[in-house]
Amino acid sequence: MAHQTAAILVIGNEVLSGRTREANAYYAAGKFFERGCKLSEVAIIPDEREAIISTLNRLREQYDAVITSGGIGPTHDDITMESIAAAFDVELIEHSFIVQAMTDHFGAEGLNEGRRRMTRVPQGSKLIRCEKTIAPGARIGNVYILAGVPYIFESQLDSILDQFGDRPYQRIEIEVELPESLFAKALTAIQADFDDVEIGSYPGRCGPDPCGKICLSSQDTERLNEAVKTVNTMLENIAS
Amino acid sequence: MAHQTAAILVIGNEVLSGRTREANAYYAAGKFFERGCKLSEVAIIPDEREAIISTLNRLREQYDAVITSGGIGPTHDDITMESIAAAFDVELIEHSFIVQAMTDHFGAEGLNEGRRRMTRVPQGSKLIRCEKTIAPGARIGNVYILAGVPYIFESQLDSILDQFGDRPYQRIEIEVELPESLFAKALTAIQADFDDVEIGSYPGRCGPDPCGKICLSSQDTERLNEAVKTVNTMLENIAS
Repeated sequence: MAHQTAAILVIGNEVLSGRTREANAYYAAGKFFERGCKLSEVAIIPDEREAIISTLNRLREQYDAVITSGGIGPTHDDITMESIAAAFDVELIEHSFIVQAMTDHFGAEGLNEGRRRMTRVPQGSKLIRCEKTIAPGARIGNVYILAGVPYIFESQLDSILDQFGDRPYQRIEIEVELPESLFAKALTAIQADFDDVEIGSYPGRCGPDPCGKICLSSQDTERLNEAVKTVNTMLENIAS
Repeated sequence: MAHQTAAILVIGNEVLSGRTREANAYYAAGKFFERGCKLSEVAIIPDEREAIISTLNRLREQYDAVITSGGIGPTHDDITMESIAAAFDVELIEHSFIVQAMTDHFGAEGLNEGRRRMTRVPQGSKLIRCEKTIAPGARIGNVYILAGVPYIFESQLDSILDQFGDRPYQRIEIEVELPESLFAKALTAIQADFDDVEIGSYPGRCGPDPCGKICLSSQDTERLNEAVKTVNTMLENIAS
């Protein structure tokens, strides 16, 4: 059965130091929405063993699935695989398939210590292969361990997406040229009537005047359309 | 004394659904780096009371300070203030200063139910005012409650930045035209010699060839320059 809820664990000092703008959770968020898997949490943490272990153990307990991003390369700051093995209390093993693929590609003499690091996965993992890279990601339990480099992350995620969600969300946005406070009470009442539609209000400005958006989303097209109609009628009544 | 570590708690379904690309934690990450406060974690969670309470209580226990972003407007999905009051086990009160400011601006008849919501803060809070908005943010204990709209968030954050960090980080990046695996072992040894410098390696591609970056940062300029020199010498030795 497809995962209904998921969390994303981004492992990377480069994001926390402001060097790099987070891109992978953003990509996954859009894909999960399209497929109807609820993204329940994103956590961004440093390349630190204890932070990885404790955060991963919390998230994999709390949600159907966890995607991790980053820290699976050959350098000293790539400690995701060994930390996840520790979180599951299993050995970190050299996977024979990856050793073979690396040897085929780089030759036996090209399999240096750094590349050897990349052949290691937590014992019991299944590999997540994609055409963008020789070193694959891995799945253990409900945890999917993917790369941090965006074009590889995206390719790996696309290859496992069919395991996430099975009833797409749809979203309709309504532009509003009224201050939020004028329709807040009426919108609260509508939300109460439509508990299967998520209604959000996002203020903005067009010059000096307010112009925000009311954003409705649901897995039920009929109910979504009904809620949109109700919001539109409410806004017309307030404006007139 | 200035906060040495901080976490950011982004509260917003619009980010988790992929509608909006996260911008506020990214802005804050850059500012904290410049000031020398370590951003230790970013958590993005939905507009849900229990998620806000449990995540906030974990983060404020774990780090010197927490910045929250989002959920302080007038609509039904704005539940940050009441959830944080619950997390601190204090009352949510109408703050007389905000009531006055709103009344001055909108008139007594303009202070409708939606705007009235925005006068409420957890009891014991200090206000965080900025010129971009009438409704201020609030500080309670080590938690700073800021807006989700980016231009307001940025203005509010700028107004409290002097409480975060007191010894700026600096960063130097070195471009590398070698595959990571060729210098991974040598870089590990350098990192071991420089525990006051954070060294990260970020692979990339220039056409078919690898061309990544080694990124060094530290609060100690002298040590940073020494580490950069050591990495450059190492790279020259491998390339020759």
